[in-house]
Amino acid sequence: MANVTKKVSWSSRDEGTGETTPLLNGAGKDSARYSRQFLNSSILGRLSAVVLDDQSNEDTETSCLKEIPHSEKLLSSKYESLDYDNSENQLFLEEERRMSSTEFRMLEISRWVVCALIGILTGLVACFIDIAVEQLAGVKYNVVKHSIDTFTEVGGLSISLILWAALNAAIVVVGSIAVAFFEPAAAGSGIPQIKCYLNGVKIPHVVRLKTLVIKVFGVISSVAGGLAVGKEGPMIHSGAVIAAGVSQGRSTSLKKDFKIFEYFRRDTEKRDFVSAGAAAGVSAAFGAPVGGVLFSLEEGASFWNQMLTWRIFFASMVSTFTLNFFLGIYHGKVGDLSNPGLINFGRFENEAMEYNIYEIPLFIFMGVMGGVLGAIFNTLNYWLTIFRIRYIHRPCLQVTEAVLVAAVTATVSFAMIYFSNDCQPLGENQAEYPLQLFCSDGEYNSMATAFFNTPEKSVRSLFHDPPGSYNPQTLGLFTLSYFLLAFWTYGLTVSAGVFIPSLLIGAAWGRLFGIFLASMTNGSIWADPGKYALIGAAAQLGGIVRMTLSLTVIMVEATGNVTYGLPIMLVLMTAKIIGDYFVEGLYDIHIKLQSVPFLHWEAPATSHALTAREVMSSPVTCFSRLEKVGNIVDVLSNAAMNNNGFPVVSEFSASAEPGRLCGLILRSQLIVLLKHKVFVERAHSSLIQRKLQMKDFRDAYPRFPPIQSIHVSQDERECMMDLSEFMNPTPYTVPQETSLPRVFKLFRALGLRHLVVVDEENRVVGLVTRKDLARYHLGKHGLEEMQISQT
Amino acid sequence: MANVTKKVSWSSRDEGTGETTPLLNGAGKDSARYSRQFLNSSILGRLSAVVLDDQSNEDTETSCLKEIPHSEKLLSSKYESLDYDNSENQLFLEEERRMSSTEFRMLEISRWVVCALIGILTGLVACFIDIAVEQLAGVKYNVVKHSIDTFTEVGGLSISLILWAALNAAIVVVGSIAVAFFEPAAAGSGIPQIKCYLNGVKIPHVVRLKTLVIKVFGVISSVAGGLAVGKEGPMIHSGAVIAAGVSQGRSTSLKKDFKIFEYFRRDTEKRDFVSAGAAAGVSAAFGAPVGGVLFSLEEGASFWNQMLTWRIFFASMVSTFTLNFFLGIYHGKVGDLSNPGLINFGRFENEAMEYNIYEIPLFIFMGVMGGVLGAIFNTLNYWLTIFRIRYIHRPCLQVTEAVLVAAVTATVSFAMIYFSNDCQPLGENQAEYPLQLFCSDGEYNSMATAFFNTPEKSVRSLFHDPPGSYNPQTLGLFTLSYFLLAFWTYGLTVSAGVFIPSLLIGAAWGRLFGIFLASMTNGSIWADPGKYALIGAAAQLGGIVRMTLSLTVIMVEATGNVTYGLPIMLVLMTAKIIGDYFVEGLYDIHIKLQSVPFLHWEAPATSHALTAREVMSSPVTCFSRLEKVGNIVDVLSNAAMNNNGFPVVSEFSASAEPGRLCGLILRSQLIVLLKHKVFVERAHSSLIQRKLQMKDFRDAYPRFPPIQSIHVSQDERECMMDLSEFMNPTPYTVPQETSLPRVFKLFRALGLRHLVVVDEENRVVGLVTRKDLARYHLGKHGLEEMQISQT
Repeated sequence: MANVTKKVSWSSRDEGTGETTPLLNGAGKDSARYSRQFLNSSILGRLSAVVLDDQSNEDTETSCLKEIPHSEKLLSSKYESLDYDNSENQLFLEEERRMSSTEFRMLEISRWVVCALIGILTGLVACFIDIAVEQLAGVKYNVVKHSIDTFTEVGGLSISLILWAALNAAIVVVGSIAVAFFEPAAAGSGIPQIKCYLNGVKIPHVVRLKTLVIKVFGVISSVAGGLAVGKEGPMIHSGAVIAAGVSQGRSTSLKKDFKIFEYFRRDTEKRDFVSAGAAAGVSAAFGAPVGGVLFSLEEGASFWNQMLTWRIFFASMVSTFTLNFFLGIYHGKVGDLSNPGLINFGRFENEAMEYNIYEIPLFIFMGVMGGVLGAIFNTLNYWLTIFRIRYIHRPCLQVTEAVLVAAVTATVSFAMIYFSNDCQPLGENQAEYPLQLFCSDGEYNSMATAFFNTPEKSVRSLFHDPPGSYNPQTLGLFTLSYFLLAFWTYGLTVSAGVFIPSLLIGAAWGRLFGIFLASMTNGSIWADPGKYALIGAAAQLGGIVRMTLSLTVIMVEATGNVTYGLPIMLVLMTAKIIGDYFVEGLYDIHIKLQSVPFLHWEAPATSHALTAREVMSSPVTCFSRLEKVGNIVDVLSNAAMNNNGFPVVSEFSASAEPGRLCGLILRSQLIVLLKHKVFVERAHSSLIQRKLQMKDFRDAYPRFPPIQSIHVSQDERECMMDLSEFMNPTPYTVPQETSLPRVFKLFRALGLRHLVVVDEENRVVGLVTRKDLARYHLGKHGLEEMQISQT
Repeated sequence: MANVTKKVSWSSRDEGTGETTPLLNGAGKDSARYSRQFLNSSILGRLSAVVLDDQSNEDTETSCLKEIPHSEKLLSSKYESLDYDNSENQLFLEEERRMSSTEFRMLEISRWVVCALIGILTGLVACFIDIAVEQLAGVKYNVVKHSIDTFTEVGGLSISLILWAALNAAIVVVGSIAVAFFEPAAAGSGIPQIKCYLNGVKIPHVVRLKTLVIKVFGVISSVAGGLAVGKEGPMIHSGAVIAAGVSQGRSTSLKKDFKIFEYFRRDTEKRDFVSAGAAAGVSAAFGAPVGGVLFSLEEGASFWNQMLTWRIFFASMVSTFTLNFFLGIYHGKVGDLSNPGLINFGRFENEAMEYNIYEIPLFIFMGVMGGVLGAIFNTLNYWLTIFRIRYIHRPCLQVTEAVLVAAVTATVSFAMIYFSNDCQPLGENQAEYPLQLFCSDGEYNSMATAFFNTPEKSVRSLFHDPPGSYNPQTLGLFTLSYFLLAFWTYGLTVSAGVFIPSLLIGAAWGRLFGIFLASMTNGSIWADPGKYALIGAAAQLGGIVRMTLSLTVIMVEATGNVTYGLPIMLVLMTAKIIGDYFVEGLYDIHIKLQSVPFLHWEAPATSHALTAREVMSSPVTCFSRLEKVGNIVDVLSNAAMNNNGFPVVSEFSASAEPGRLCGLILRSQLIVLLKHKVFVERAHSSLIQRKLQMKDFRDAYPRFPPIQSIHVSQDERECMMDLSEFMNPTPYTVPQETSLPRVFKLFRALGLRHLVVVDEENRVVGLVTRKDLARYHLGKHGLEEMQISQT
């Protein structure tokens, strides 16, 4: 099923224009044919070049299929970029120049205030999710236990099973319906989406209030519904949404503007807050404020600076503190700060937990295992996701699948509890929800514990229960079944994360490994199953998500013990290296399957042969400083050309010569200008016409109206618009000979959206955008180029 | 003494050229006077504008004074920049294009190998320093103890004092002589120098092998000599030097070329390794691999990317592991990994060490105290440093001062031991070097312990000794005297760091605070003096060096306990905010006093009014593509103009019109070309002339010969040189109207050395270099401009 659109066209960009220049030999390419044309044949050509080369496509709904990008060899053109480079036009500069240093200091203080708010709200949301899940789980446990107690004696255990499965499915269906029908952007963990956002890709709806609400309820329902999921990943998404909302001082959805933080209403500022929000989310989820900062860093370090780091750190700190404080109150211990995150691995403090140098090879071996198992997990999930994209893309089907998974999860759990006879004595430090089932009095079924607990508690039990708490068969069966359930569950249309299931799988086989070692060495003191459970958890998680630095810190902060830093690092590194050999990380797979034009850290190593000339889109639609309104409206309305930035040129000779670059204007700016009818003629005629301010642009941000909603009369079409004041007069430019890695570096380092390519006389010859750069990647046969799909 | 050159000239740049345009109103400035001229009157003007406006200057050696930059209101022009932007000329691109993806993979692997080597060597150096210091301290203790034991009875304690002072002074003098006479770059902690290096400033000799050797011996001597210093800061410098050496695969000093890692012989690659080395140094010093990564991040994040982060992390990990392993062997516990760093704060595990929410205000108060005390420390050290720059700049004087400080330190210590009567019972977990002195049998003098131990052990004792181990008077006296000694010692011409003294001062007053709290609350369980000692240590260190994120992680990793993360963060944040209110951090003060053109993270907030036009140096010396050798030699030999980059222009009309930019060539490249006599005429005449390769440039890196060493005959002066192949054909450019923050962002984000300013027809009108940007800073009266000094 992986062969969907395997055909990689090496000359797809040229098909439309009829040129046959091979991609890697563009030096002699004819670059003199620059003309100002609105119907960009090259773009059309590129669009039509998208051929779904899928012979085995039995699905009859071809149109429906085409709407869903489903190949990692395509880049979707539906994603817009965010603009992390300020448009420094005259209005902006005038405003900045008017501001005194005191005002700048106030701005700085308000940034800190926003970060504090982000931290507090993220902590509160985490707290709410935690308490809600715990309450629901308690209710569920009581109902099922009551049913088991009642029916076991009369031999009707199947009634309990049905009750349990129905209960789980009912809880899950609520969340799934909310996600599938109301806000599909709330599905999954949200981490891939946040990665994309920080990378500069605008994923629709990803930072909206509605998404947050659905996400929170979705997480509660899927965790309480007993799915093999965690609530930690979604916290990162929640934090990001909170940040995006708070920092704007208004809610566009609720149509409520608090008239504060107006200065922050642009992509650059918003992104900084979103990374703070993501960090606060990690911090609340794992009690790992430093890990949170590092997470944001690993995902979006290109725009980093020291003050920002500190603000992000502050937000993380406040978030974990808030969660800690309120969970302390909930647990009746006011002022106790020992609940730093949603998951806490507990303290590793006894002697057996120390490790020695001869265990290092064992750790590395576990890292290899984690890498291999992670690769298997990711590959299975990749196939499943392709299947889902092709066949399960209607909301009702998605909900059905979710219900099915919930029921199967319950059934598998029940079956395993039924067939396992792993009874353990009821101790003092035992699970909160012990189930006796077929065990003798004073004992409990350990398999039931593993399935009935919230996954967080199961992880903790695997780490800390004394040796002998689980028998090997139980663990083996549990690993296998949970592995299958987890890979099936990830990507389901519910809000849920993959961190905890990964940890749980790893902890189970890690503990198994520890038990095996203990039996091999006749129970040496160092062969503590809890320690190996921890290492296994790290290995499995690293093998699936492939984070290293941030994950090490998160794990260390969650265990509360730095001693394990070194082995965890080793294991994560190994797991990453091994895993990367086979397949990418889970988040990257999902990003690719969505055809997102994601920019990696650097251009492919072998891409020095390409230059801006080959990479750029050309010819480019330009405007003059003084442009006819009709022209602008025509260009913006042209559906075939969804450009978002237009170079402004100084002169327009009738010849084929392109104009000299004197600025860059964005579609969104033009729309605001058209809306306010800032025409040269009107400026003279109407005396009361007020001057356009930065505020007008900020008010329209981020949901600029479509061009269709703006009415321009026939008379107005003949008016002229003076763009000088509104365009960015100093866009970044590169000469045509610039190599791709150099273009890439400039583009990535400054978070650009448009980069103008000029000739030696500063005439516009092309425009480089995100998709032009994201197209190239290093495949098995060297440099490959992806196609741009329409959807 | 702080009023040296307080006069800030607002028009110093224009004095020379005779223009009187006020700085902040350059819009109407005449920008048409661009002419190609070699004797740049503007630069001369700027140089002569340096007036030392110091009325109270009694020093007669004015010439000597002038050689030493000593004001924070000047920028020295003696510092060159590093070139963190690759010069992508034809040679380079051809080489890159020839490389297959396998070769790139091999390169990537060799980067990892280099990082492993860096880690191993840094760990070994740390190990060597640690063992050497311990051995020397042991010898010294035995000698002094023997002397005390012998002479106390005969009443001649003063003999012991003299012996001790002489011993300390003798040890210190060795290190000080080495530093002062052989390698002044090895003085101090080296952290400011590494900060500058990562920022892009070339500090002479800072990453040479000789510096490393002197540094290592210097640290051993100053720590063993009983000065109030630590060996942790210098580890960071050592790691950086090791990295710079290993990554180049040769030693220029030893004239030994291993012919490996040749690809890494340029500033861009070298910088990446240097940041790995610095991280490995932190990691070895504090057993804090994550802290090390964050340290490098806080100091140089502008060039960060994910792969680099992982390599740096790997180097850190290997470094701490190596140290751990070898110290384990040294301590006779092979395979024991419990010595992760040079300093280890010990385990904080008992109940009393937990904190509660009502202690938060106390922590914040301690943060405030740390900030205030840190500011006092920094201010005192600032005055002292100015005094030193003016009066103690000859090596012999510097050595004398070091000896004096050593003797005074010993005397003060001895006096305090003599007058203190703080006797403590000899327990089991007591200090390694107990001194009985005037205490009864079975007791030891706790003040003597504090002074006789290595500072690392004293810190640990303050953290962990049970309540009652120190009496308040002892601690108070100790804090005061150590504070004064430490501020006097930092900046001395010895290799030594300020981390440990800061921690020690903080731990002392923190413990005092804890004792006070305990007596206030009648000995509540939570008022544990050890815990408050830890918080005090963090507060004091934070108040002096003003790091937050990395320091938090370093402290957490050194305590081995994440629980303290939150209070440490709070305290460090508070200390930073309070401290910054008064004065800058210690490292920044020293960087400023050296007049280093250090680029901060962002341009001053209120600098939007300035544009590239006002900021740039103009007119610029340009070359044509085909340039006469004589011209090039003349320009390069011109001492008054130390430009390092020259725009290459396409045409040269006789008119005043500047040429169109077609490339940028560096002084170092021209020197290599001249050395190899790459003249157009010779290419035709001599058949055997081989083509110049990237290798020739790499071989000359980094110590390019001066122009004076290259002989060019009169005939050769008439030859022509074709620069096309060697210049960077795609330098980054900005239009003249670009605002300063925008120029700054581009420059800083890409680590540029030269940024060409062009007009709307791509003609060269100016050049922006580091000094042009570093000049502007936000002073008390708004935006201020610093002068450029000649020295």
